[in-house]
Amino acid sequence: MKIQDDLSQLIVHSDSPLNAEPTADRLRENFVTPRELFYIRNHGTLPEVDAARYRLEIGGLVNQPLALSLDDLRNNFPKRELLVSLECAGNRRDELSAIAPIPNETPWQAQAIGNGRWAGVALWEVLLAAEAREDAWHVAFEGLDEIVRGENKFSFGGSIPIEKAMSAEVLLAYEMNDAPLSPAHGFPLRLVTPGYIGARSVKWLAKLTLQAEPSANYFQAHAYQLFPPHVRADNADWSKGLRLGEFAVNAVICRPRAGERLKNNLTRVEGYAIGGGGRAVERVDVSTDDGNNWTTADLIGDSAPWVWRFWEVELALERGENEIVARAWDSGANTQPEDAAKIWNFKGYSNNAWHRVKVFIAG
Amino acid sequence: MKIQDDLSQLIVHSDSPLNAEPTADRLRENFVTPRELFYIRNHGTLPEVDAARYRLEIGGLVNQPLALSLDDLRNNFPKRELLVSLECAGNRRDELSAIAPIPNETPWQAQAIGNGRWAGVALWEVLLAAEAREDAWHVAFEGLDEIVRGENKFSFGGSIPIEKAMSAEVLLAYEMNDAPLSPAHGFPLRLVTPGYIGARSVKWLAKLTLQAEPSANYFQAHAYQLFPPHVRADNADWSKGLRLGEFAVNAVICRPRAGERLKNNLTRVEGYAIGGGGRAVERVDVSTDDGNNWTTADLIGDSAPWVWRFWEVELALERGENEIVARAWDSGANTQPEDAAKIWNFKGYSNNAWHRVKVFIAG
Repeated sequence: MKIQDDLSQLIVHSDSPLNAEPTADRLRENFVTPRELFYIRNHGTLPEVDAARYRLEIGGLVNQPLALSLDDLRNNFPKRELLVSLECAGNRRDELSAIAPIPNETPWQAQAIGNGRWAGVALWEVLLAAEAREDAWHVAFEGLDEIVRGENKFSFGGSIPIEKAMSAEVLLAYEMNDAPLSPAHGFPLRLVTPGYIGARSVKWLAKLTLQAEPSANYFQAHAYQLFPPHVRADNADWSKGLRLGEFAVNAVICRPRAGERLKNNLTRVEGYAIGGGGRAVERVDVSTDDGNNWTTADLIGDSAPWVWRFWEVELALERGENEIVARAWDSGANTQPEDAAKIWNFKGYSNNAWHRVKVFIAG
Repeated sequence: MKIQDDLSQLIVHSDSPLNAEPTADRLRENFVTPRELFYIRNHGTLPEVDAARYRLEIGGLVNQPLALSLDDLRNNFPKRELLVSLECAGNRRDELSAIAPIPNETPWQAQAIGNGRWAGVALWEVLLAAEAREDAWHVAFEGLDEIVRGENKFSFGGSIPIEKAMSAEVLLAYEMNDAPLSPAHGFPLRLVTPGYIGARSVKWLAKLTLQAEPSANYFQAHAYQLFPPHVRADNADWSKGLRLGEFAVNAVICRPRAGERLKNNLTRVEGYAIGGGGRAVERVDVSTDDGNNWTTADLIGDSAPWVWRFWEVELALERGENEIVARAWDSGANTQPEDAAKIWNFKGYSNNAWHRVKVFIAG
């Protein structure tokens, strides 16, 4: 069975590379995000892979280099299944772009996030089978896509530290939501790195290299760096940015929508929240007076590491304009910064400022 | 050799229980904090322990209960040494008290933190020796001190989850800075739980109990909870607070001091920063216009998990009053909230709002 991608329910930011996200209210309908509503973030071509001829190559600092077919992966390793929410480092970039332009980057709203049920092989078991050596401090990944940057053509890549790679939660996934991966989500095999920015969950996995240093791939060594607000593209020192790994705690209001006109001043507010690095969402605060007074939202369901948390709260709003703001706290006592302008960065990453939605109550 | 505590260089907030911290400029003089400048946070009596008769009891869900003497600990387990910064959950409480009163809590300035060189035994090795059972999900600790709360007398206690207890970095320490512990710092044996609030580094360790649930001790089950700003002591639901474990990222300006009058408008600003849960300090931003423009501070020395990072920056200040603010970013892309009023909580914990120091440049 070949899975096709259905883009009809997504906001498509660009066709090639394909970048798309759902609307906020559709996203909030399902705790496990259906594929048709799962954001797609690509940097190059969308590879068509012949599953029968596919091999995953494992090399570098290993004593037993491997080339594994899909059948090898399915038959020689236990099948592991895990709920994991993936979030793009550029999620909520549009709020940063509204403060000062961020050219040449996808203007993500707040739906470059999705929660999938992933199944495949635990990365650590493959690394053991390859007999990873003790001097391997990083695992580098490379995809089958083709990306053009100036005169260079290359594939998307990245790396994670060995201690993350050896942890139970990192998967080489061949299924998403109980079906084979679709082409846009990395068929036939993708990495799923829970708690890290989506870029570290490399799709269409071709190669896995154990090495002493992080990946030299453009998307590890250069892109996905967080710079201070005063730095611009033309004066950035690319050796000095914060290289993004774990994402930060975040909360987003999905309903009501920005600009919505409501008849009833009693309004149910619904959203999602997520902690980075496996930290649990411990609390979501909601305010209608810019954070001078807060209401605690109800967290829905149980807490699980690597997975977002839905929340809801009923608010009594005032006639006219209301600004609803939300912020979350994680189990590491981290909370979100107040003002997006004060964390603005020229690449538009890691926006976890208080989420703000203005609505109107009819008089 | 019996080590005595010297309080002469500390600000003593209370004698019994003994609570004391150094001044900010003295704290910033040494990367490894000398004992005479290390904050002391006690809740009860200061026990006098006879080292020869001392035993650490290990029980609960273990197959091999143990009672270890100091010689057993020294001779039967490898000596491990680790730099670890401890920070009280109430550090920087005085800034919260200035917004609204926080009665019955120690008004810590920003020096309830210190960086020690701890030596002792790895907790995980003792847990293996005791043959911890698979149903042990938490390790509870109890001290030898005596605390009075209303009509109850009990010892300080707390617990950490088993995955933290089994990690390489948690120590049963019998030395601080290459000398035996002093009485105020937990002689003869204390827990050191890196990356967690100081309360989880129980002193004068008497008992270690493996159990299915977290400790029921007052200081684990009740105190050290973070509540939203609108909650007060008289309406708090103690089943619902955020139970503090890892502390949050924080940066503090140590020099110049608040209110200082400076002659030179070129001013060197110096401070410390720390990430919770072993996350590295990746960047410290400093501003003199309330965060509209930032300067990146120089981070001094190398990064190490569990350890604070000193930083410094030279600023050109204006004549008259200047407010210097600082914030840090950790390797999980977490940064600090802007406004202490908006994270105020009635117990006064976890204040990591931007640190603000006003100074004057003479005209």
